[in-house]
Amino acid sequence: MTLQELGEDALVKQLLAGLPSHESVRVGPGDDCAVVQVSAGTLLLKTDAMVEGVHFLRSTEPERIGRKALARAISDMGAMGGRPAHALITLMAPADLEVDFVLRMYAGLSQLASEYRVAIVGGETTRSPLIILNVALTGHASHPVLRSRGQVGDLLAVTGSLGGSIRGKHLDFTPRVREGTWLAEQGLVHAMMDLSDGLAKDLPRLAKASACGFAVDDSSLPLSESCSVEQAWSDGEDYELLFTCSQAQWEVLQTTWPEGFAPLHRIGHLTSQPIHSRPGGWDAFD
Amino acid sequence: MTLQELGEDALVKQLLAGLPSHESVRVGPGDDCAVVQVSAGTLLLKTDAMVEGVHFLRSTEPERIGRKALARAISDMGAMGGRPAHALITLMAPADLEVDFVLRMYAGLSQLASEYRVAIVGGETTRSPLIILNVALTGHASHPVLRSRGQVGDLLAVTGSLGGSIRGKHLDFTPRVREGTWLAEQGLVHAMMDLSDGLAKDLPRLAKASACGFAVDDSSLPLSESCSVEQAWSDGEDYELLFTCSQAQWEVLQTTWPEGFAPLHRIGHLTSQPIHSRPGGWDAFD
Repeated sequence: MTLQELGEDALVKQLLAGLPSHESVRVGPGDDCAVVQVSAGTLLLKTDAMVEGVHFLRSTEPERIGRKALARAISDMGAMGGRPAHALITLMAPADLEVDFVLRMYAGLSQLASEYRVAIVGGETTRSPLIILNVALTGHASHPVLRSRGQVGDLLAVTGSLGGSIRGKHLDFTPRVREGTWLAEQGLVHAMMDLSDGLAKDLPRLAKASACGFAVDDSSLPLSESCSVEQAWSDGEDYELLFTCSQAQWEVLQTTWPEGFAPLHRIGHLTSQPIHSRPGGWDAFD
Repeated sequence: MTLQELGEDALVKQLLAGLPSHESVRVGPGDDCAVVQVSAGTLLLKTDAMVEGVHFLRSTEPERIGRKALARAISDMGAMGGRPAHALITLMAPADLEVDFVLRMYAGLSQLASEYRVAIVGGETTRSPLIILNVALTGHASHPVLRSRGQVGDLLAVTGSLGGSIRGKHLDFTPRVREGTWLAEQGLVHAMMDLSDGLAKDLPRLAKASACGFAVDDSSLPLSESCSVEQAWSDGEDYELLFTCSQAQWEVLQTTWPEGFAPLHRIGHLTSQPIHSRPGGWDAFD
């Protein structure tokens, strides 16, 4: 059965069955807006879109497409040292798409939402020639970590390994919320971001935001299996944390980094030299 | 110059110049997430997408496309009796689109944001074969009005006039935030929603959510100029408020409805009959 045959209201009814909620949700999907209860303080806001043919292929398992759509936004929360809370999903899809495909995308998305305690509180469905999933996500951080707080002399570090994400990690990566919130709450980080467009694109962004330059020792890059240094710089979609900290913070990290967290690697430092860029990485319009 | 020639980072830099902000914004566009300050209480959340060829044509003035994308989401805030606060914008566009087209869309969007005191705090740009604008919006309501609180015997009323929106109102409509928040704050409304898919589609949704049926006197429908009753039911994109209230509330409304607000029209009432539908209106996948 296709979306057109089922119709919008019946589709929405099926999608809503089994979406994860949360005690903070006063009005979930089905009204003009969702209504959630929040405490006074800082609220994190993020939006992210996945476009068929750009971020995934129609031949990908639908569960993994749905999972990735939410995981990308959750990764940004972790990179601020925050935890995700409430999500809104926009589904754009061709009228002749099979209903089953959509249900499976939402199953993947819901599974990840449950794991990260994200309540799906609303969204929208609309027709489009391509499948597109847009996720809008709120979150909380007691100590938001910005990418602009790096200091000259800070060490540069990353979690996990870099490169070769296209072999599967770009779909199945683990958003580094545990690591990001821990770093923020322990006060062991100056600046942080997640690596979505590749180190070559993202590191200059962090350095520029912090009014610094950077120096990286290529031999220290944690390469994913059978990846080259160039791939580690340029493949993109690593969804690892890139952060800066002082030498003193790094020494504490060496002894306190919890077991089970993604491995840490020091890759370089921030410099006072003029900001410079590096070829490679992902440009949305290139 | 096209988006591809300019590149993502330079485009984002141009888009950010002149976006409206607000004193509650701690971190605006440019980091992994936006960070805003909120008070304890209820937060409204809404997401809405506009797809080229579905909700607008490439030949439309870009300012009006941008305006409509935000206005649709603001209209939903008004329909909850709430005020909009912070917006995130996702721009999906072909790499060969002229930069000027995008800047003009954002100019229209920013103009409306300023009028409604909406801070644009972030977003994303990505490649897509079509132009798509997705807006995620937060808001506040001291007394959120749901579509499910209608009662048997409630009067049904609408603001403004219905039908013929395609002649221009679907682009240039005024989101009914003043009227919606006033109704909510005066306690003169039971259930409310905005008319986006047409009375024929939306009224049954409100009635069903309230576990009621409905009766409408066709001769009482406020028709837009040179529109038929059928157009008032089915054209859609009116972006007027549909609400229910008691007879006593209606009598108060007759004497207290502020000058300058959109005109009010009583069109029928909620019944105890089984829920029924009415042909017509807009289905996203039809």
